[in-house]
Amino acid sequence: MIRNLIRIEDVTTQWWDGLYSTFCDILEHPNDYVDACRGKVMASLFFEPSTRTSFSFQSAMQRLGGGVFGFTDPATTSASKGETLADTIRVVSAYSDAVVIRSKLEGAAQAAALYSPVPVVNAGDGGHQHPTQTLTDLATIAQLRGKIGGITIGLCGDLKYGRTVHSLVMALEKFDNVRFVLITPPELKMPDYMLDHMRRTGQNFTEVTSLEDTLPELDVLYMTRIQRERFPDYNDYLRLRGVYVLTKDKLRAAKSDMTILHPLPRYDEMGYDVDDDPRAKYFDQVRYGMLIRMALLANLCNQKRETPHSHPLTTNINCTNPICVTSAEPYLPRLLSLEGGQSCGYCDKSLI
Amino acid sequence: MIRNLIRIEDVTTQWWDGLYSTFCDILEHPNDYVDACRGKVMASLFFEPSTRTSFSFQSAMQRLGGGVFGFTDPATTSASKGETLADTIRVVSAYSDAVVIRSKLEGAAQAAALYSPVPVVNAGDGGHQHPTQTLTDLATIAQLRGKIGGITIGLCGDLKYGRTVHSLVMALEKFDNVRFVLITPPELKMPDYMLDHMRRTGQNFTEVTSLEDTLPELDVLYMTRIQRERFPDYNDYLRLRGVYVLTKDKLRAAKSDMTILHPLPRYDEMGYDVDDDPRAKYFDQVRYGMLIRMALLANLCNQKRETPHSHPLTTNINCTNPICVTSAEPYLPRLLSLEGGQSCGYCDKSLI
Amino acid sequence: MIRNLIRIEDVTTQWWDGLYSTFCDILEHPNDYVDACRGKVMASLFFEPSTRTSFSFQSAMQRLGGGVFGFTDPATTSASKGETLADTIRVVSAYSDAVVIRSKLEGAAQAAALYSPVPVVNAGDGGHQHPTQTLTDLATIAQLRGKIGGITIGLCGDLKYGRTVHSLVMALEKFDNVRFVLITPPELKMPDYMLDHMRRTGQNFTEVTSLEDTLPELDVLYMTRIQRERFPDYNDYLRLRGVYVLTKDKLRAAKSDMTILHPLPRYDEMGYDVDDDPRAKYFDQVRYGMLIRMALLANLCNQKRETPHSHPLTTNINCTNPICVTSAEPYLPRLLSLEGGQSCGYCDKSLI
Repeated sequence: MIRNLIRIEDVTTQWWDGLYSTFCDILEHPNDYVDACRGKVMASLFFEPSTRTSFSFQSAMQRLGGGVFGFTDPATTSASKGETLADTIRVVSAYSDAVVIRSKLEGAAQAAALYSPVPVVNAGDGGHQHPTQTLTDLATIAQLRGKIGGITIGLCGDLKYGRTVHSLVMALEKFDNVRFVLITPPELKMPDYMLDHMRRTGQNFTEVTSLEDTLPELDVLYMTRIQRERFPDYNDYLRLRGVYVLTKDKLRAAKSDMTILHPLPRYDEMGYDVDDDPRAKYFDQVRYGMLIRMALLANLCNQKRETPHSHPLTTNINCTNPICVTSAEPYLPRLLSLEGGQSCGYCDKSLI
Repeated sequence: MIRNLIRIEDVTTQWWDGLYSTFCDILEHPNDYVDACRGKVMASLFFEPSTRTSFSFQSAMQRLGGGVFGFTDPATTSASKGETLADTIRVVSAYSDAVVIRSKLEGAAQAAALYSPVPVVNAGDGGHQHPTQTLTDLATIAQLRGKIGGITIGLCGDLKYGRTVHSLVMALEKFDNVRFVLITPPELKMPDYMLDHMRRTGQNFTEVTSLEDTLPELDVLYMTRIQRERFPDYNDYLRLRGVYVLTKDKLRAAKSDMTILHPLPRYDEMGYDVDDDPRAKYFDQVRYGMLIRMALLANLCNQKRETPHSHPLTTNINCTNPICVTSAEPYLPRLLSLEGGQSCGYCDKSLI
Repeated sequence: MIRNLIRIEDVTTQWWDGLYSTFCDILEHPNDYVDACRGKVMASLFFEPSTRTSFSFQSAMQRLGGGVFGFTDPATTSASKGETLADTIRVVSAYSDAVVIRSKLEGAAQAAALYSPVPVVNAGDGGHQHPTQTLTDLATIAQLRGKIGGITIGLCGDLKYGRTVHSLVMALEKFDNVRFVLITPPELKMPDYMLDHMRRTGQNFTEVTSLEDTLPELDVLYMTRIQRERFPDYNDYLRLRGVYVLTKDKLRAAKSDMTILHPLPRYDEMGYDVDDDPRAKYFDQVRYGMLIRMALLANLCNQKRETPHSHPLTTNINCTNPICVTSAEPYLPRLLSLEGGQSCGYCDKSLI
């Protein structure tokens, strides 16, 4: 059982199997779930706006018969100014059965979990983690292809700044016989620490630069957006954004049963003429995202309230990541990453 | 059966009869409807704010046991910037069982319907249509007077820019023996195309300028607001706004069972001293508006999801209406009005 | 039975006993209440933002199976500009079964109640009243100490501007054997009219300046925030804010079963090191606040709609309080306070 969903690494294969089984059951018997969260309420704290993620969680909770309160826009968070995140979480969790939190600060969800008597879900914390997007991707692949293993998946676009694909790689590692093709321009290739990680865990992967040459081998093509906000230099953005554009024309070379996914929103990287292709599944992916969040909330919102452990107050956090939550919330206890021991337990950046 | 409610012209007499019958049933047996939309969720997309319309839909859906997500203010729509309306609708409809949309762009709801697998309701698109206001007016007249036909109705105020009264005229045409008295100053008289339409469909109507002289003949008096935003010249507004003011004093000449309606909000055109008159029914009208929306949503939210047809992408829309949705969403397929064939299928403006 | 909750003085001991009994029942059998407001909807009108109060009401209503609509931020109230409060209330109450209103204008909730066919709850009107905070405090004391009477309670901090403590004093007067210790710097001592009132009603109270000296005698310590916005002179604020700070260290002198309360949010007046002390109960207080609002809404939302009385329109209100609701809504009928006869029936300020 998972108490909080903070990182995709929290997800074990066994827990995933249970979650996906609930997902399938909701898909087949939605009426069995209309009371799954009756009398329960979800807090939705979007310190950074993200309309579609927020809507997906809200709809999921309401379909389960539960209620939702919170804010969806930073303009409405002024009310919590002058209050620490710890106090906000303690108040909000007093009113709710699960807290969904989105923030620009890396580690914000982890910090929230320290003070919450109810489960906390990370709905995106800066460039760090966005685990429910990854669960969405897994559920979509499993649903559309029968199972997750035994596929060749192309990850195309910005693999340098793309949090989504990093998490997807981490998650797919746990399934058998997944082959990765990393399709990027040199400027946006997968970072070394991810490549090292893939080598260390024995992944089967290739790095290529041509989308067209690679298309015929793929079972799944995962397109990503080239996000302008990730580029310090706007000219680099302009030069690169059109490089990996999927068109109806290029699709002729692909397998007839290939699955095209995209985390959305899209810009230029995927033409509107692709939408009518039966292989285009990114809008199904959107719906599956809501359904996997239903499965998640049905589980988390029905867990018992638990008094959080008390934490020593810290005045000496030494994480140097300027957007780590510890930089904004200096009272947070010092926390080391479970795995390495030498990285920040909030944002996972190296402390050395 | 209606799939989408875009224009008041979509409403047939037969469909109306069914809707009104549900309305009456909800009024008498509200407890029978508390689960009518259980497990269902309505998306409420107010690209233009309209507090009372938004509240009416939200309350209606929640009374049926359903959930609501969306935005009520343009300030919170920034999140969808850079995304086409088509993609926004495809995402939002993946999360919902009906989409309610309000926009300044004429034809926005029609455009939304092209991409939605669930029913779309037009909650106002610029000066074009606002069909649920008209359903509210019909339900109120039917409820308060026993039936809709056989009445003399005075439409008073701004009949030139008043979308509400144009739609009401179109709707009342379908009932027997309705006599219209159009009460306006010359500057705000009913436009020629509406007068032509009324003549063509054989309506019984008179144009007058005096409210006081006309009052004694009326069964229903439909007051409208003189909206400042409709006047290019502010001085014209100042000169005209006080012309057709209803007061307790003037009401002495009216029938004792006359019904006074107003779409609200009101400004100067209807004195507060009228509120206590038993003929003042505009706050009942507000409540009937919520109830007719309950009847509508109970029907629409329980329809099956249907994959929308694919649409050719267009680069050559020739509608010249600057606030037509096609001006902001240039990929929309070319659409001709069903009736004429020579007007835009989104905003109904002539294409010639 | 209470129809509206506008002032804490509206609360009789008998009504409180019933409310608290429901509170206890909800705490023990929450599942018995998941349908208590099924098919009902609460309007939540926050003309002034107050995130935690708004969330508390929203969560309470949804846990009872009811719906919520409204606004939580003044930025979204622009839509009601140009409309009177009377009309806003008449429209919103047509959609709802209870209206919760928060405003900077004193007497706003009282004004709303004049026009509403459904119960109105005051969620804070300027410096005037905030009765559900007081109900929260009462429920917390009763729950944590077994009963309300027979205690020595210290009220610490800003007793001059603190609406919360004034209301709490008024409420505690109705219980037996409550001794008050008023702990303030001279600049922020309890106003004379409150002291007069306490003397008149025979309260047992002492005024002291030292928190530390007083701690050992207290059963309940009610801390309050020194609010910057109450100080015309910022230097006064800077000088005073640190004076009455509670720390883990000072707590050694207190009784082992003392109960520490705080209406939150806190700033410097209560150190984070106090949170882990078992006597710190302010986060329990937050949760009890939601539960007492559940008890309140379960009662109010199930009352019958009642046509409000008609009111004479007034052009000559003589309340001179610049933030009285009558200054913004000049049509309001003249209303005298029930008790005195010489104070404003909206904001309770003297009219002489």
